[in-house]
Order: sequence, then C-alpha cells, then structure tokens
Amino acid sequence: MPRFWTLASLRLVTAPASTPVPTLADIRAAAVRIAPLVHRTPVLTSTSLDVLCGARIFFKCENFQRTGSFKIRGASNAIMSLTDEQAACGVVTHSSGNHASAVACAARHRGVPSFIVVPENAPQAKIDTAAGFGGVISLCKPTLEARQEMVDDIQERTGAAMVHPYDNNDVIAGQGTAALELVEEITGLEIVSAPVSGGGLLSGTAIAATSLRPAIRVVGAEPVNADDAYRSIRAGSIQPLLHSNTIADGLRAALCPRTFDIIRSRVTNILTVDEETIIEAMKLIWRYLKIVVEPSGAVPLAMVLAHRERFAGRHVGLILTGGNLDLDKLPWQH
Amino acid sequence: MPRFWTLASLRLVTAPASTPVPTLADIRAAAVRIAPLVHRTPVLTSTSLDVLCGARIFFKCENFQRTGSFKIRGASNAIMSLTDEQAACGVVTHSSGNHASAVACAARHRGVPSFIVVPENAPQAKIDTAAGFGGVISLCKPTLEARQEMVDDIQERTGAAMVHPYDNNDVIAGQGTAALELVEEITGLEIVSAPVSGGGLLSGTAIAATSLRPAIRVVGAEPVNADDAYRSIRAGSIQPLLHSNTIADGLRAALCPRTFDIIRSRVTNILTVDEETIIEAMKLIWRYLKIVVEPSGAVPLAMVLAHRERFAGRHVGLILTGGNLDLDKLPWQH
Repeated sequence: MPRFWTLASLRLVTAPASTPVPTLADIRAAAVRIAPLVHRTPVLTSTSLDVLCGARIFFKCENFQRTGSFKIRGASNAIMSLTDEQAACGVVTHSSGNHASAVACAARHRGVPSFIVVPENAPQAKIDTAAGFGGVISLCKPTLEARQEMVDDIQERTGAAMVHPYDNNDVIAGQGTAALELVEEITGLEIVSAPVSGGGLLSGTAIAATSLRPAIRVVGAEPVNADDAYRSIRAGSIQPLLHSNTIADGLRAALCPRTFDIIRSRVTNILTVDEETIIEAMKLIWRYLKIVVEPSGAVPLAMVLAHRERFAGRHVGLILTGGNLDLDKLPWQH
Repeated sequence: MPRFWTLASLRLVTAPASTPVPTLADIRAAAVRIAPLVHRTPVLTSTSLDVLCGARIFFKCENFQRTGSFKIRGASNAIMSLTDEQAACGVVTHSSGNHASAVACAARHRGVPSFIVVPENAPQAKIDTAAGFGGVISLCKPTLEARQEMVDDIQERTGAAMVHPYDNNDVIAGQGTAALELVEEITGLEIVSAPVSGGGLLSGTAIAATSLRPAIRVVGAEPVNADDAYRSIRAGSIQPLLHSNTIADGLRAALCPRTFDIIRSRVTNILTVDEETIIEAMKLIWRYLKIVVEPSGAVPLAMVLAHRERFAGRHVGLILTGGNLDLDKLPWQH
C-alpha cells in the first residue's frame, strides 16, 4: 500500500482562538452558490442492512455526486467564492484523489485554469480523471516538502489561488452542504457520521448537523490504520499521523489546527475500525444497496458494525463519500 | 421514418383474436395493486455515458427494486390478483433466479406458502435468497421435463396456484409497470428498450410504452448467444432456443406463444449483442452510474453501444433489470 505523503510530525500547534469558523449561514450560502454545479444526491435505505446493524441507517449517497465524490462541494464553493481578480490566474491544489478532480471540474466551470500537484506514486486512473477535467498535472516526489515546494513554485509562476483540500473555510462550508441536505431531508436523525481524514468533511458535517439540530451527535469514523484524529482528540492536541496503511485511500491525510478545533468543539466522538471491517462494510453496501462505493466511503458503516452497541436502535445518517475505485481490483479479492 | 426498423414486413401472422392480452388499463391496475410491495425506482442519467453513446440515455434502475430486480412487479401482481380461494393453498413456480425470490417475497406478503422448483445446478446464492424469503425449495434435474413433472407433482399434492415467470397475463401486466413509470416520468422518450428472455418484461414494456405514447419505438435487446427471440421474430414463428451460453444468466429462457404474439405486434425490432459488449456495458454502468447491475441488466446498453448509428441523437429509455450477482466473480475478471 503506497503512502502518498510521508508525514513529518509538523503542526503541533492549535489555531489561535480568533480563527474564524464557518457557520450554518456560510453553509447555506455555499449550498446556493454551488447549486448549478453539484447534484442533490439521494438518501438510500436498506431493510436488510438495518437488520444487520440493529439500527436505522440513512445513506447520503455522495458516490452519485458530480466527479464521483463529495469533494466537488467544497472545491466549487471555494472556487466560486473567489473574486474575479483572485480567480483570474487560476487555482492550484495538491491531491492524489477526488479533490484533484473536483478542483479541475470546478475551475473549468468557472472558466479558469487549474494546476494540480500530484505525488508521482498516485494511481494513474485518478491522475487521468483530473486531467480529463482539464487540470494541468504536475508530478512531485511523495513528501510534504516536495509538494509544498511545487505548490509554491506554481503560485509564484502563475499567481494561482490555493484551494487547500481541507484547511480552508470555504472548502469546509461546501463539504457541510451534504449534511445540510441529509439532516433537512431525514427528520429524526439522532447520529450523523462521516469519515475523517484531514477533517474538512467532518468539520462541515458537524457544523451543519449540530447547528440545525443541537441534539444530534456527530461521530467521526476513522481507519485504525490512520488514526491520527482519534489520538488527537483524546490527547487534546494534534498528534502526527504515524502510519496510513489503509485500503481507505481517501483517508490518509492528517488534521490541521483549523479542523482539529472545529472537530474538538462539535464532534461527540471519533471511533476507529479495522481493515477487515471496512472491506466487509463495502461489500455489504454493494450487495444490499446495489451501489458502487469506494473503501473510504464504507468506513462509517464499518464503524456502526464494529461498535454496534453504541448505535443500537438509533436513526443514523452516514455520508457515503464517493464511488471512485479501480473495478479490476476489488479489496475482497486480494 | 429512418431506416431504424425493417420488421414491418415480417408481421405475417396475427395472434388469434380470442387470446386476451394485457392492456394499459391492466398495467395501471397492477401499479395500484403492487404499490404496497414495490419501490418506485429512480431514473438515472450520466453525461459521460451520453457522450459515449451519442444519445441521451435514461436508465430505469430496477436493480434498486425490492428483491433486487423487476421480477417482484409481475410476481406480486399475479399473487395479489389471486382470489382468497385460489391463494389459500399457496403458489408454485419454477426459476433459478430472480423470479424465485420475487415469488417467495410476494407470497410471504400475501401470507401464503410458496413452492419453488429450482434446477439442481442453480447457484446456491440464488437458492438461498429465495429460501430466505420463505420459499420452499425443491431441486430437480435441469431439464424441462423434470421441471414440469415436479411442478405438477407439487400442484397435485398442495393445490398451489402456478405463477409462471412470463406465460401469465398478470405477470406481464406487472412487469409493464416499470415502463409505465419510466414513460410517464421522462417525457420525450423516442425509444424504450428492455432485455428479452421469455418475453414477459418486453411484452409488458411494449404494451405500456406504445399505449401511452404511440410514437415510441420499443426494441428488445438479446444476447447473440441466446437469440431465439431475434430469430423467431424474423422467421415469423417461434424458433427454439438453440443455445444459451451467455453471461447474461437471466436471459436463458425462450419465448412462449403469448409473449411471441405481443412482441410481434408491439415491438419494432430485436437487436442482438455479443458477450464482450455486454461485459463492457456492465462495467461502464458500474463506473459511470456507480451502481451494481447484473449482466442481464446491461444488455440494453450493450445494444445501444453495438448499434450506435440506430440510436444517434435519440432519447432512449433502458430498463436496468436487476443487480443480483456474485461479487466475488465479476465477468471482466475472468
């Protein structure tokens, strides 16, 4: 399993108390802003999965989202929020996966170029997808330093605006629109869960869900093999990502101070799951919901299965984050 | 009229005037009758697939249907149409696939037993599914004679009512409810297509679509490796199924006089596709629609891809029949 980014134990500081945080109003504004570019995704249920889980599960199907994942929500909100002057020179980001395609797609919609820094060990299929949306791909060595150097270099050369995958309030507000739709559509949800990687989706989800319904508990789902958020929340300070050897290839990033602070104040708990349960959950989703979901998207269901007693009898909303994967190599066939 | 269809001259014989055929009114009545038991399935579209096909494609997603296929529509209409006296002793059918689960599910809903005759070489997973819905399974040798003998024997012992997979007007009317929903929801369809096996779905589809919108052309899609319907329509008389060596395991049955007559009078054409194109179409659906569809369900898209010039620029509705398959052995991995 490749590690896309070799993570040094950087960023052990928390954000200053003055850091502004997106609000429900920001998320509602994002929903209006991105509406021309994104799909309203369906919420699916399965009686068979409810029986297996001992709970009532509502799946927000972002695998059906434009570009195949929720990432278009945050990317398009950030890119549509730029002034004409800021957007004029295009946008730049770093990603080896769904955020890359999302930025390229949203930039094309805005009519500006996108520059995508991709680690040279990223899957070719994902690089091709971002390039297919018109992204200008730059390969770099798979280290944080090489990545930053290349981003800096592109910004210097082009003047492109940075669209960070999660350390960006507009991105967080955009990601929160998925939970906004879910919680407004399914009344009576008691728990909402999203996977946690860099924490952008979980932050937006937590702000949307707890602002709309203060009684809702928001739980992050994280692979035990990339459990920096789990350890950070328990330690009360950001802990480094020690390893990221997980099949959930979208969940190999680490929290930043901005997302750490939001999650610490808005998220009830983070629970971890092992690889075997992620694969089991993924296969159950394919079998019973008849939809294609990528490993990262199955992590919240895996969490419910692995911690069944915590969800017994509850109405639980899960964000199925995406459906992009190599159909020739399914994880249960390895 | 473009050269789309060359079959008018082949309609040599009409059905005897006495054979009753389901009408649009029967299909509408079926829709009301089965509503408590079936899902209204969504219609999905994909810009990428439209570009690949050179046409505008609307997928009626019966893979999301209860029991994982459209078969519950016909089975439940037939079983709910029985008088209390007829239903009292239960129902019997023969099937190795989706119809078996559908009959078992609908019978359980009605509160009567179901007896399912299954060839002993049927996949264990499908047998288990039917049994899971409460079906009483009887294995027989995989010949038409052994199957009929066992059905006769069960009827004699139990008095169960036969629910044939397609040679039954109530089943045909039930299957037609999928096209009823599709054509009423998507205005402007020019062509509607369903796979053809025994012809129940295609018959119901043709009656619904052409009754609602006489200008709609209905096209059957059939594997070239199980092309009895294609040959029958061209010959003007029912031709035997010479082989059924196709990955589309739901399409291995042959027309009966009832479905042959309906198809001959209502269907514009039947087009065949090879195995490779079926597999390609199936993978495209998984990749772009992010849904799990079984090989049989991909046959109409395969037909569009294989006969692209006939569909160029058209608005085409395709019935994705089901999503039940063994996820451990995907056809493109063989």
